[in-house]
Amino acid sequence: MAQTGITFDEIQIGQEASFTKTITETDVVMFAGISGDLNPAHTDEVSASASPFGGRIAHGALVASLISTVLGMHLPGPGTIYLKQESSFLKPVRIGDTVTATCKVIEKTEKKRVIFETVCTNQQGETVISGQATVLCPRK
Amino acid sequence: MAQTGITFDEIQIGQEASFTKTITETDVVMFAGISGDLNPAHTDEVSASASPFGGRIAHGALVASLISTVLGMHLPGPGTIYLKQESSFLKPVRIGDTVTATCKVIEKTEKKRVIFETVCTNQQGETVISGQATVLCPRK
Amino acid sequence: MAQTGITFDEIQIGQEASFTKTITETDVVMFAGISGDLNPAHTDEVSASASPFGGRIAHGALVASLISTVLGMHLPGPGTIYLKQESSFLKPVRIGDTVTATCKVIEKTEKKRVIFETVCTNQQGETVISGQATVLCPRK
Amino acid sequence: MAQTGITFDEIQIGQEASFTKTITETDVVMFAGISGDLNPAHTDEVSASASPFGGRIAHGALVASLISTVLGMHLPGPGTIYLKQESSFLKPVRIGDTVTATCKVIEKTEKKRVIFETVCTNQQGETVISGQATVLCPRK
Repeated sequence: MAQTGITFDEIQIGQEASFTKTITETDVVMFAGISGDLNPAHTDEVSASASPFGGRIAHGALVASLISTVLGMHLPGPGTIYLKQESSFLKPVRIGDTVTATCKVIEKTEKKRVIFETVCTNQQGETVISGQATVLCPRK
Repeated sequence: MAQTGITFDEIQIGQEASFTKTITETDVVMFAGISGDLNPAHTDEVSASASPFGGRIAHGALVASLISTVLGMHLPGPGTIYLKQESSFLKPVRIGDTVTATCKVIEKTEKKRVIFETVCTNQQGETVISGQATVLCPRK
Repeated sequence: MAQTGITFDEIQIGQEASFTKTITETDVVMFAGISGDLNPAHTDEVSASASPFGGRIAHGALVASLISTVLGMHLPGPGTIYLKQESSFLKPVRIGDTVTATCKVIEKTEKKRVIFETVCTNQQGETVISGQATVLCPRK
Repeated sequence: MAQTGITFDEIQIGQEASFTKTITETDVVMFAGISGDLNPAHTDEVSASASPFGGRIAHGALVASLISTVLGMHLPGPGTIYLKQESSFLKPVRIGDTVTATCKVIEKTEKKRVIFETVCTNQQGETVISGQATVLCPRK
């Protein structure tokens, strides 16, 4: 019954998958409650609009969570064990921006780990997060 | 009106701050909706209890979000710009576990970046995430 | 203490009740998480605005849920057992639309079932869902 | 960039897809807020535990929403237009039950509609909802 993803033997270098979602005010408000990060940059429109960002921005950790969606839902998919994530936050994501997370296989290691290039872009095609993930593929 | 955190000049190597929160089923359910990650490991108790983890676990990205709470709310605090995060996911976090995220200053760079060691531990004191964050401190 | 609704003997053919609610972005975002339906039509403003609908639309199942609100809260009300629902989705409901669900008794069967015509209309009076519900009335 | 599902020509009679999710208290509470259905059967543990169901049960419309997840996300997938749903609610779903929605193609009509048998089962394999859906497949 459980869905199962792609194994180490099946996955190929260059293979990629994406997930796209508009980051809404609801997402930011709920994420603030879950994480406890009620930093004014995310929750105080008055101070955020006086900041260099000109308004409330989404939490970097919220945007980065779309990467784990790709890894856990699509490639390799259910059964994946997430070992490591490195993310550089390059540009702010504003409420209403539509973000695409793309994960592309760049290496299969001797210890059966798979390394992905992980990139999040906004609706203008600008890279907002770049980084790498390391995972163990599901077993069948 | 806006709260402001600690500047680069004020912050000191060895300084640290923490945030603790119980990871509830509600957090995991809502995080699944925000991220789009409805991987059965997080949302299907039947298949999750048949997995090596023995039950539903929290998203690694959810647990890691507590790190940004410490950085953005406490040290350096409001006004911080989050540049980079590296996280290794060492142990699963189960629904009901209580996680403490601790961020400790380990380096102040020439380019005025501050590097933190970022560690999340569970209620047994086991390290569940270890990593590093790089930030720009708020300006006054 | 428990509230109780209208019994089979009390309910009359032609009797009706309604419930009206604006379908907000928050409703759609949270419903996506509950159902697991993060179909881009509901969650990706960029691709949804390029679709024939011209923007994100609410899940049909979300809009149809207002029917069960009328049946379970108003007519027949608490204690009702919901046996069957048929719904035709005639027009999309956009974020911000205000929907009225109306349930009207059209038949009382020999087996003590009550059949309702169930209609959802938008703020322009257009029918967005039409269908029928079958219920068992509460007992006193 | 937009994901696209399976077309009318590609889809085959007998083809099926499933989605499984544990129905949590969080889901029921949030669904009550979205739908407005705060019927005591779903939200009042005192009266619900004195009812024939012996405790709070999930909204039938919530459980049925998993069907639209399968249709919109998996088969036929993104781009699907949901035309009609018939659902018979056969057994209650309690908080904590794990439900699998399965949609199986049973007919392709002359008017290019696809008819699915739609069944929801619980963790004991009991059918809790049975019905039919009619959709238009995505176009490429």
